[in-house]
Amino acid sequence: MRKHITGFSNPTVKYLRSLRDKKHRKRAGQFLVEGLRLLEDARTSGRVPQTLVMAEHRAPHDLLARLENDVLAAGGEVIVTAPDILAKITGKDNPQSVAGVFDEWDTALTALDRSAAPIWLAAQALRDPGNLGTMLRTADAVGAGGLILIDDCADPFSAEAVRASMGAVFTVAVAQARWEEFLPWLRAGDGQLVAASLRDAVPYRGAPYAAPCFILVGNELQGLPADYETACDLRVTMPMRGRADSLNAAVAGAVLAYVVLASLEG
Amino acid sequence: MRKHITGFSNPTVKYLRSLRDKKHRKRAGQFLVEGLRLLEDARTSGRVPQTLVMAEHRAPHDLLARLENDVLAAGGEVIVTAPDILAKITGKDNPQSVAGVFDEWDTALTALDRSAAPIWLAAQALRDPGNLGTMLRTADAVGAGGLILIDDCADPFSAEAVRASMGAVFTVAVAQARWEEFLPWLRAGDGQLVAASLRDAVPYRGAPYAAPCFILVGNELQGLPADYETACDLRVTMPMRGRADSLNAAVAGAVLAYVVLASLEG
Repeated sequence: MRKHITGFSNPTVKYLRSLRDKKHRKRAGQFLVEGLRLLEDARTSGRVPQTLVMAEHRAPHDLLARLENDVLAAGGEVIVTAPDILAKITGKDNPQSVAGVFDEWDTALTALDRSAAPIWLAAQALRDPGNLGTMLRTADAVGAGGLILIDDCADPFSAEAVRASMGAVFTVAVAQARWEEFLPWLRAGDGQLVAASLRDAVPYRGAPYAAPCFILVGNELQGLPADYETACDLRVTMPMRGRADSLNAAVAGAVLAYVVLASLEG
Repeated sequence: MRKHITGFSNPTVKYLRSLRDKKHRKRAGQFLVEGLRLLEDARTSGRVPQTLVMAEHRAPHDLLARLENDVLAAGGEVIVTAPDILAKITGKDNPQSVAGVFDEWDTALTALDRSAAPIWLAAQALRDPGNLGTMLRTADAVGAGGLILIDDCADPFSAEAVRASMGAVFTVAVAQARWEEFLPWLRAGDGQLVAASLRDAVPYRGAPYAAPCFILVGNELQGLPADYETACDLRVTMPMRGRADSLNAAVAGAVLAYVVLASLEG
């Protein structure tokens, strides 16, 4: 269905704007993605938005035309509106902009198949959505099975996380769980839990990594709680040649993931 | 000197607020750092602010008292003001907050001594201040000589870059240069220029890295210009197992820096 919206006070406009807020996203079970590039990433990953929003008199574009067709074919809605109303929805003052609304998907641990990949990333209390998106992107790059978000992390469906993921949010599995759920789930099957740590750790190069290997990074400021580190099968340490004793969380995860990838592939 | 400021319209308040804006920072040659932790990082790195700003009736704190002493001993100024005025200056609604004003320092290439370290990081047109700060933090961790910012990069003295650096901005040398200055400077001495690339590249593990090794990453969206890549001595490629063909710039730099560190140390 195609719809033309002319007023700022239209309830659909209000609804779309509200999706920039986490509370409203959770209530609605939907999230908003801005930009043709990300929408095209979604489409090629088999995810078509329920609703597509664009400015009237927008310059034609092949990718956009295909996207529009797919949305309509799937029974979705295409909304055309004034550039200033679109800017209000996306928060971007760009009349070439386009946005899509997606249903959030299941992020239960039970949806993961641990035998699907040799490497998994996990983050505990990761608060920065940019770091979260970056870890999704890294997970895609190393062929990880997914990213497991433990305890209170940023929202993987926030605009900033989606943007930082460069589309990986559409291809990399994401699960969300409390530590009290994650650990029993992990222990119910194969899986080596590895943390970058300063406590009782071995050098990160040459450590005995084993698939499926779950690489765990902690909160940006606090790191991992001591008892979480203790519960790991392997604690590894990376060289720190300067005055600091830690790396950015997403960086630490990536450096470790590439070493694990090299180790497992021999 | 100790000074008490009571009015929002005080010119000092206006000046301090203006430092949140890049244009004003460049004109003044000064930048503002918020938070006791960062100010303590600066102090232990030998950098004392010209001006220290805190709220009146702030809870006493040993580190803060020492900082105050150092500022006054160096002939600087300590400004005490109302919590709401402080919040206006720092943009943070926290009466425990404290901020310092520092002179920006020289970021000319000529200030670098390439023989000082086996690894250097370089970034071209890096636009995200968070990525820039993260690269400073990584540079500290791998013991790099410094971070060289090529062409139009984010401002290393912006609040976001300083925060993401976790204090490394105070310890890691930073230089800023156009490519047209950087390349002749590099070629006037020893130095291997290495880029992560898909063009005519060798696997990143086992590549013939040589000190001083300059690791170059490109813009977040465009990567490196083709002629910059061609000018590199070594182009290396990292495994990309997913659908994307690149990593976050700061992540790529870090993964590569740790491999170079391991290679050079044997």
